[in-house]
Amino acid sequence: MRRADGRTPCELRPVYFSRGFTRYAEGSVLMSFGETRVLCNATVEEGVPAFLRGQGQGWITAEYSMLPRATQVRSPREAARGKLSGRTSEIQRLIGRSLRAICDLEALGERTILIDCDVLQADGGTRTAAITGAYVALHDAVFGLIRQGQLNASPLRDSVSAVSVGLVDNHPMLDLDYAEDFRAAVDMNFVVTGSGLFVEVQGTAEERPFSMQELDDLRNLALTGCRELHRMQMRTLEA
Amino acid sequence: MRRADGRTPCELRPVYFSRGFTRYAEGSVLMSFGETRVLCNATVEEGVPAFLRGQGQGWITAEYSMLPRATQVRSPREAARGKLSGRTSEIQRLIGRSLRAICDLEALGERTILIDCDVLQADGGTRTAAITGAYVALHDAVFGLIRQGQLNASPLRDSVSAVSVGLVDNHPMLDLDYAEDFRAAVDMNFVVTGSGLFVEVQGTAEERPFSMQELDDLRNLALTGCRELHRMQMRTLEA
Amino acid sequence: MRRADGRTPCELRPVYFSRGFTRYAEGSVLMSFGETRVLCNATVEEGVPAFLRGQGQGWITAEYSMLPRATQVRSPREAARGKLSGRTSEIQRLIGRSLRAICDLEALGERTILIDCDVLQADGGTRTAAITGAYVALHDAVFGLIRQGQLNASPLRDSVSAVSVGLVDNHPMLDLDYAEDFRAAVDMNFVVTGSGLFVEVQGTAEERPFSMQELDDLRNLALTGCRELHRMQMRTLEA
Amino acid sequence: MRRADGRTPCELRPVYFSRGFTRYAEGSVLMSFGETRVLCNATVEEGVPAFLRGQGQGWITAEYSMLPRATQVRSPREAARGKLSGRTSEIQRLIGRSLRAICDLEALGERTILIDCDVLQADGGTRTAAITGAYVALHDAVFGLIRQGQLNASPLRDSVSAVSVGLVDNHPMLDLDYAEDFRAAVDMNFVVTGSGLFVEVQGTAEERPFSMQELDDLRNLALTGCRELHRMQMRTLEA
Amino acid sequence: MRRADGRTPCELRPVYFSRGFTRYAEGSVLMSFGETRVLCNATVEEGVPAFLRGQGQGWITAEYSMLPRATQVRSPREAARGKLSGRTSEIQRLIGRSLRAICDLEALGERTILIDCDVLQADGGTRTAAITGAYVALHDAVFGLIRQGQLNASPLRDSVSAVSVGLVDNHPMLDLDYAEDFRAAVDMNFVVTGSGLFVEVQGTAEERPFSMQELDDLRNLALTGCRELHRMQMRTLEA
Amino acid sequence: MRRADGRTPCELRPVYFSRGFTRYAEGSVLMSFGETRVLCNATVEEGVPAFLRGQGQGWITAEYSMLPRATQVRSPREAARGKLSGRTSEIQRLIGRSLRAICDLEALGERTILIDCDVLQADGGTRTAAITGAYVALHDAVFGLIRQGQLNASPLRDSVSAVSVGLVDNHPMLDLDYAEDFRAAVDMNFVVTGSGLFVEVQGTAEERPFSMQELDDLRNLALTGCRELHRMQMRTLEA
Repeated sequence: MRRADGRTPCELRPVYFSRGFTRYAEGSVLMSFGETRVLCNATVEEGVPAFLRGQGQGWITAEYSMLPRATQVRSPREAARGKLSGRTSEIQRLIGRSLRAICDLEALGERTILIDCDVLQADGGTRTAAITGAYVALHDAVFGLIRQGQLNASPLRDSVSAVSVGLVDNHPMLDLDYAEDFRAAVDMNFVVTGSGLFVEVQGTAEERPFSMQELDDLRNLALTGCRELHRMQMRTLEA
Repeated sequence: MRRADGRTPCELRPVYFSRGFTRYAEGSVLMSFGETRVLCNATVEEGVPAFLRGQGQGWITAEYSMLPRATQVRSPREAARGKLSGRTSEIQRLIGRSLRAICDLEALGERTILIDCDVLQADGGTRTAAITGAYVALHDAVFGLIRQGQLNASPLRDSVSAVSVGLVDNHPMLDLDYAEDFRAAVDMNFVVTGSGLFVEVQGTAEERPFSMQELDDLRNLALTGCRELHRMQMRTLEA
Repeated sequence: MRRADGRTPCELRPVYFSRGFTRYAEGSVLMSFGETRVLCNATVEEGVPAFLRGQGQGWITAEYSMLPRATQVRSPREAARGKLSGRTSEIQRLIGRSLRAICDLEALGERTILIDCDVLQADGGTRTAAITGAYVALHDAVFGLIRQGQLNASPLRDSVSAVSVGLVDNHPMLDLDYAEDFRAAVDMNFVVTGSGLFVEVQGTAEERPFSMQELDDLRNLALTGCRELHRMQMRTLEA
Repeated sequence: MRRADGRTPCELRPVYFSRGFTRYAEGSVLMSFGETRVLCNATVEEGVPAFLRGQGQGWITAEYSMLPRATQVRSPREAARGKLSGRTSEIQRLIGRSLRAICDLEALGERTILIDCDVLQADGGTRTAAITGAYVALHDAVFGLIRQGQLNASPLRDSVSAVSVGLVDNHPMLDLDYAEDFRAAVDMNFVVTGSGLFVEVQGTAEERPFSMQELDDLRNLALTGCRELHRMQMRTLEA
Repeated sequence: MRRADGRTPCELRPVYFSRGFTRYAEGSVLMSFGETRVLCNATVEEGVPAFLRGQGQGWITAEYSMLPRATQVRSPREAARGKLSGRTSEIQRLIGRSLRAICDLEALGERTILIDCDVLQADGGTRTAAITGAYVALHDAVFGLIRQGQLNASPLRDSVSAVSVGLVDNHPMLDLDYAEDFRAAVDMNFVVTGSGLFVEVQGTAEERPFSMQELDDLRNLALTGCRELHRMQMRTLEA
Repeated sequence: MRRADGRTPCELRPVYFSRGFTRYAEGSVLMSFGETRVLCNATVEEGVPAFLRGQGQGWITAEYSMLPRATQVRSPREAARGKLSGRTSEIQRLIGRSLRAICDLEALGERTILIDCDVLQADGGTRTAAITGAYVALHDAVFGLIRQGQLNASPLRDSVSAVSVGLVDNHPMLDLDYAEDFRAAVDMNFVVTGSGLFVEVQGTAEERPFSMQELDDLRNLALTGCRELHRMQMRTLEA
């Protein structure tokens, strides 16, 4: 059984990390999952948000946005509307939680790492690409701090990646593109550490509720996908 | 093993539905999960949002808000800040999706049912109480339409309820109150139909990533809880 | 002469104070004037707004809001529109002024008492019910401070209550419900202390200007109503 | 007994109407109450707001604003803050109600008259000056419609003016300037028709509650003041 | 060749400075360019904006606004819309830059002078009238500081004025009124110091691009106009 | 005389057009002026804004934004602040006017072309790079309409490009990078058509006013730069 772009159900799209994509950010990765492209820029700032001040720990957070013409039909800028949509705010909270889950925030010290995830082109899976690329940008920012002598050791305890899975025509499929996502009866996103533990599980019955067997199948497929993404992250970081 | 309030790990808090709590709404339920109290008011409006017009189907949506002093420490009104927090917008999208999942929107006809979920008192689990109570308010609104002859049959294909589960001191526990939720290493919310299928699965590693075994334990506990909530919904609606 | 609900022109609707309605607020009263229900929650906070800092005095303020479905026809949340209506802002300023008028702010010390008045159900007179209930919630919060040893004596110099009066079919009537208010040619609100002095007088010719005689009749009726409300406040607080 | 500026307690400040102050508005009056100066510009627009459409009646409304440096200490522009203060919104609602009270809105036809009241210089009594000047601007706009043949007769059934009164050092005083207003224990605004009937009564105990006798004294003083303002309006309009 | 109002192409409209127009501002000038009237009020405040703190220098800034009925057709208040238009923000930045260009900000000391430019009546050239009048208001504010002994010498190194020029029916014309501006193919604004140097040059091809010869002709005309405005500023300030 | 990056004073930075940079936009150009990179995406939409409806003409407009980490120090997103800065709004108005100046809007028909200019990396000259790249994206969008048979001929009457010039250390220099721009005493932007006519001229004395001779030198340098940019645009479009 083949998908529209020739993939098998349990195959990722071509994945590509372009490190150093812009020159000023402390970490800068253009992450491609097929035609989806997300620019992940890490910024290191001294200090932490007010609610953490004086507690001797750092913070990692994220912002997410789509360029208006990342999509087939242009969508208006959120700056023009003057507020974030619910979807945007959900996604940026998810990215932040995912990165914090694999970092020892006390070891980071009283500094903040903010990852800007800007979608240049969207063909499904922008939030999972953002998390997967943000990890690499975060890693580069952290090792910059080590090189400059501001940190002695990495506060990153593990790596993290994310992938979407879904039921399309009643088949579990990995890493949905936009056309598949649109038709999926059930849509899930998994965020998984390099050591194979879950950080986030989010599943939505878009069209019909789903059974325990289906949940288990999707979960297994996602673990396979994240294992592969983890290998590619390691390969990129070793380069 | 007993919890602070005397419950076993797989026991719900006292659950209470107070139907007809206010007099103008087409369905009005004060939902109590222990000390958590959410007022769920259903409003029936003719017509549908612009993006659905002319497609011969209805819509169900929800709004969620906390009274400022629902919590131990007062939190400012979102109206004063002029925008919804990310958390609020996430929750109201979740409630809306959960209710739409069990309704035949074409059978509803070109009308909108909006459920206002206002938290009067918050002791953990406000979003799951909101979904569980909103189903009953939705049901009352739908049967009002039937009584008035505006609908011939119910467009509700199933019922829906929700519950939180989490790992507290490494034990899976059902229906966390605020103190438990605060200490939980992992926190999940499940939305489940009366027939035992999943509508939404959301899990977050608050403190540490979790294993597949832990995911399965939490899932099973949630299914038990929702089965019980379903029975109580049925009992209430038969009354 | 009888009104639609059987009252005489100078009779209040059934008035009921439900103290301790929620558990976290320092004072919590569900105030009922007939079918109108306003939840008044008092919060004590250390410190005062910037404009009062360092002047050795306290502050009392209020916020007012209606739940969307408090009314027969649902009205949109102000949080969704991102700003307060003129009506809301007028009412919350009125409640704050009324409570400050009977309190010795220096004796209160550098702390703020904020009363949240949330209308659960609206059948006319929500602002007068809010003031009348807010006094009781304020009283409970103040006596909490005394019990905890944070205040030696009450800074409350008097009590305060409020009532609406109006010309309906050219007859002065007390405590208008929504249907009466809608038809009233003239609509006034009086805020009166327990000792019978005026704190606020607000009258509006909704349909036709009014004479000095009519003004005097309405004033007298309001004094009668507030005297009765004062007695009920005292009875509640003695309980 | 003399006030700081030499007036007796029941004397108005010098009152001056400068008609035709700007050239584009359909009515334009620079209203002076002593050093208080309010520019009242009337605009006639075809059509009515949505809530009145198709009911065969017109509408009169007002907007009120202070130039930032109308006052001794500059206050920030509301446009910069992005929302109206509660005080501004209260005042513009008051001006609109006062003008509508003396107009036959059906005779006005389906058009809107909007009065912009911009305070160029503020020395107390800006809202009462605004109402008194707005009436003259409204009158000029209405007679412009008659001259152009768009109306056969004036829809204005009466005139309207407004004045402040207050208890300063326990004496009732008319038309308070800023220094008096600041010290007043009680502050009231009355809006009165040319025929001596009340349109609005607003009284606030700024410092101490007030008795029925004090209320009556202030009311009488205000009636005297408005009778004098009415005479000056008539004289201006005859010129 | 004569223009609609009888002027030659290189003639300014009647220019009039009314100093001391309001009483509280440290400098207050009602500036008239023909029928255009801009009230320029200077406010002196201690301290500087955050980005300049501790650098031992002052700041000059401006705000610009039109009264709603300054124009033939009323335009809505920006406060009601909750944000500044692009045009307003462009103009207020221009006024601020123009004034700072002729002031030694270090000699001003750590204080801010804010010029509020409010257009009472608009007949073209409001931004150039605002700059020309703002200079006089700034001058008055600065000399007030000298008189009070807060400054020893004036930090103003030069004067500044501004004028519009344009190609109307292919002829270069000086100081366009609204009707000319509306028809102009090219529209330029020049800000020029008393010593004849350029501070700002802004030209826009409204209808067709323009040649180097046309640019030079417009530039020369503007220099003539600003020389004349400079003479009038000096005459006013000597009075 | 050489600049920091080895250029002569009248030399542009390396200029590069990357057409087809994203796949969904009707025209998509990544424009590089040295290290400055602006993504220009053209979107064709049926219909025109309300103020043009029914006039048988089209519209061209632009939006401009910087990614937060386009710069050395991160700047907050405008969406988070809920409004556009004055600078952003000035720039997007400039880009729109520049493109409309070379287009026959009637020949375009009742459609809108919107150019999104998003700065991925900023090293000075982002607005001039945006205009120069936007022209190419506009051209591609227009020729797409011709290829699809929706237009018979191009409504573009000319091409347009833009460049910055400035006085750095008293020398006129072309195409300033960020470090030069920061030190420039005078900073100008010129928008020039392919046939050598001016569309926009904007000059600001950042540090000192400038003479007529300096204005003329800068103008000539800009004309040289735009002539070169025009040649590169033509070469790109022929490819």
